[in-house]
Amino acid sequence: MTAYSELEARFRRLGAMEEAIAVLHWDTAAMMPSGGGPARAEQLATLRLMAHQLLTAPELVDLLAAAESAATSLSQWQLANLNEMRRRWRHATAVPGDLVEALSRACSRSEAVWREARPGNDFFAALPGLEEVLALTREVAAAKAEALGTSPYEALLDQYEPGGSTALIDRLFDDIAKFLPQLLDQVLARQASRPSPPTPQGPFPVVAQRRAAIVLIERIGFDFAHGRLDESAHPFCGGTPDDVRLTTRYDENDFAQALMGVLHETGHGLYERGLPAEWRRQPVGEARGMAVHESQSLLLEMQVCRSRAFAVFAAPILRETFAGEGEAWEPEALYRRQIRVERGPIRVDADEVTYPAHVILRYRLERAMLAGDLMPLDLPGAWADGLKQAIGIVPASDREGCLQDIHWYDGAWGYFPTYTLGALIAAQLFAAARRAVPKLLQTIQRGEFGPLLEWLRTHIHAKGSLLATAALIEAATGAPLGTAAFERHLRERYLE
Amino acid sequence: MTAYSELEARFRRLGAMEEAIAVLHWDTAAMMPSGGGPARAEQLATLRLMAHQLLTAPELVDLLAAAESAATSLSQWQLANLNEMRRRWRHATAVPGDLVEALSRACSRSEAVWREARPGNDFFAALPGLEEVLALTREVAAAKAEALGTSPYEALLDQYEPGGSTALIDRLFDDIAKFLPQLLDQVLARQASRPSPPTPQGPFPVVAQRRAAIVLIERIGFDFAHGRLDESAHPFCGGTPDDVRLTTRYDENDFAQALMGVLHETGHGLYERGLPAEWRRQPVGEARGMAVHESQSLLLEMQVCRSRAFAVFAAPILRETFAGEGEAWEPEALYRRQIRVERGPIRVDADEVTYPAHVILRYRLERAMLAGDLMPLDLPGAWADGLKQAIGIVPASDREGCLQDIHWYDGAWGYFPTYTLGALIAAQLFAAARRAVPKLLQTIQRGEFGPLLEWLRTHIHAKGSLLATAALIEAATGAPLGTAAFERHLRERYLE
Repeated sequence: MTAYSELEARFRRLGAMEEAIAVLHWDTAAMMPSGGGPARAEQLATLRLMAHQLLTAPELVDLLAAAESAATSLSQWQLANLNEMRRRWRHATAVPGDLVEALSRACSRSEAVWREARPGNDFFAALPGLEEVLALTREVAAAKAEALGTSPYEALLDQYEPGGSTALIDRLFDDIAKFLPQLLDQVLARQASRPSPPTPQGPFPVVAQRRAAIVLIERIGFDFAHGRLDESAHPFCGGTPDDVRLTTRYDENDFAQALMGVLHETGHGLYERGLPAEWRRQPVGEARGMAVHESQSLLLEMQVCRSRAFAVFAAPILRETFAGEGEAWEPEALYRRQIRVERGPIRVDADEVTYPAHVILRYRLERAMLAGDLMPLDLPGAWADGLKQAIGIVPASDREGCLQDIHWYDGAWGYFPTYTLGALIAAQLFAAARRAVPKLLQTIQRGEFGPLLEWLRTHIHAKGSLLATAALIEAATGAPLGTAAFERHLRERYLE
Repeated sequence: MTAYSELEARFRRLGAMEEAIAVLHWDTAAMMPSGGGPARAEQLATLRLMAHQLLTAPELVDLLAAAESAATSLSQWQLANLNEMRRRWRHATAVPGDLVEALSRACSRSEAVWREARPGNDFFAALPGLEEVLALTREVAAAKAEALGTSPYEALLDQYEPGGSTALIDRLFDDIAKFLPQLLDQVLARQASRPSPPTPQGPFPVVAQRRAAIVLIERIGFDFAHGRLDESAHPFCGGTPDDVRLTTRYDENDFAQALMGVLHETGHGLYERGLPAEWRRQPVGEARGMAVHESQSLLLEMQVCRSRAFAVFAAPILRETFAGEGEAWEPEALYRRQIRVERGPIRVDADEVTYPAHVILRYRLERAMLAGDLMPLDLPGAWADGLKQAIGIVPASDREGCLQDIHWYDGAWGYFPTYTLGALIAAQLFAAARRAVPKLLQTIQRGEFGPLLEWLRTHIHAKGSLLATAALIEAATGAPLGTAAFERHLRERYLE
């Protein structure tokens, strides 16, 4: 057995453990009764510990070195797999165990306090926890930067977006920040000049909403022989590539919210399902990173399902499912409701025009905090200033400002940029798909999603982690990642 | 850290792994889409391998020896825990890895063939697989007998019923075999002398059946903050003590089948839920064995829920849930339908009077095959002879004979006796509970299950694996396990 094949055997075991963890995580959110929490925490902690032990076993040092020294005998996929193994090993071994544990405990404490502080609008209650998490995160970032040969921020970013570069993000986000305020003014002015679309009257029973969601995502290509749709407090796509578990939540007064949520998660799910089957449970067989992952959900939700073409396809299905009558069920009304734009303080409620402003604000603030240029104490003021500059409003309270997101309080530093990177990638990919597939929007309008899905499968899903994100996008679209396609998309849709 | 506390830490990890396996097993049966099978098999195989490695780690030899030599410093619970650790270690290390794997593979193959052979009534198709499984099982039995210091059959039995003794089983089963044929004649004669109870007309919608089941088991004490009720092809009780997952299947023409199934599984579930919380994920905190486990399901299903008292309580709930009208919904009709007795060839369809005959037949046949006194080739004939002698009928085909049960084809040799041991224990426990709790049947008739549950919690559930089965029963009932209570129960119920 070669060193490389020994590594494959070990990582296959790790991959199976991580699949088991993913299923238990889904169960926790979608199925577990309330009293099951403490036992589930024990189960997950044990599986994570054993997975960590697999990844940090002392033999890996020699196995990785031996495999790398014999790398010329490896195929392109094997080589990429080996590189991903090395990257995962670096992350796992870069940080001393007691620091990992200290951060993990600080995050649990801080997250619990935040959960109370947010509804109570009490930033000062959450501040000590935030400061502690930040201090420990800076230590982790420094240790990982050393191991990865990157800047500290990039070391954190690399956990979510492997190879992510602040130089690129700065350039892309600066581009967006340049055109967005004026564009937003134009979009809102145009929107105000037209009458609002009519709104259908509920209630819309949960069973009907679920039925509509199932009909639509099956048409799009979600395979229920390899997946499920259930409910959870926070919608997500979990499970494994062969067993994709989507969740959503239903509001009986508004079917669009659950539906668009399901369509978003379906984008994630189709990506997972399309990952290369021959590399299951190997690092190279996994999704490329959170930016590409988010691009797949946003491509489906924003580029496809909020298009006029999709509204033409979906409106009759919705009208029939909900026994709707009148103008509110016409495709045009549906379409115009799905592209409403608003200056609002809350990221998760934001439309695709204002969303990047929220992300850019958080990216700049978290970089400043990690660099020591902004103290958490000064966060509320910096937040208000930043939001004012970006979209012209200030949050009415910290609850609607720097307390709204769980990320920093729970230790997810370096994650925010992936949302907007995903939106940029989605726009660039969809533009490329439209160039490559003749009459793509017409197929969507007829409810034929095969051509789009095949293009995505070929150019993104089936590639797994073979290429770096930048190379993957350039290969798929013929150009490096930029903001042009995204800006063009916004102008076409909102200023047509 | 003492050797004993080091062992506790290791077995806590093992216990958490086994809980994770249990949840995934439930998911496989109740939730997983069909295409998830191969990935799930990988996940389970990996978790089982890692659990096995925890149990067979070389350090355990010294840790067990050191803890045993310092046993005088241990509490009664710790000592019992240590004994269970040793027992589990013996089972795990007794058999060479390649034999374990050969048997596991033979069982998978044989089970797959049996799955086709049973509906096709083709015993000769299933025979080679059965022979292979038997041959390997005999090797395993010999190896485990050596390690445990028991007979080969008892070594297999010990996997399901720790400390189980063939001398005791022979004595108990001979007792039953002596009184049962004549009793059965009397029961059937008496039953034939009375008009059949009226039967309610369906269909009974699944949602209503589920609602009735939930109402009844919540009244009995099943806590939905620590459990769920779902559907699966084969009803079972899975999950973990803090998160009990019951499953059933529904037939819209017959609500009683699902309902009695749920009540049976609830007996298992209450046992799991009542296991000592302070010993979670330790061997001594687990259920005592399959005989006691089955006693808990049979106590609830047979002793309690097929009683006239329970029918008085449940009939109005059922009538209301199903909007039933007429005599068929009266308690007496419900009761009499639940205690129908019949000479039938199928074990899983058998009533409590004929069930032991099925089990005794299988016990005798499997012992003969393991001893080499009966060749699998001769099984159909021996089966027909045995059934004729026990309950006076012969199976019409092998499908209704020696092909009906999965156990032998899938490697579960030594399991069958636990069903009837469970029935005997249930009868003896319920008789003791009736002596200890004043007017127990009257409380049940009023839908008050607290007194019964408290007695079971105290005398059985909370004991975990502290005592051996024999000692547990004697402590709870004041007498060693016998057949008297079971025989008395049958005579009282069926010959009243």
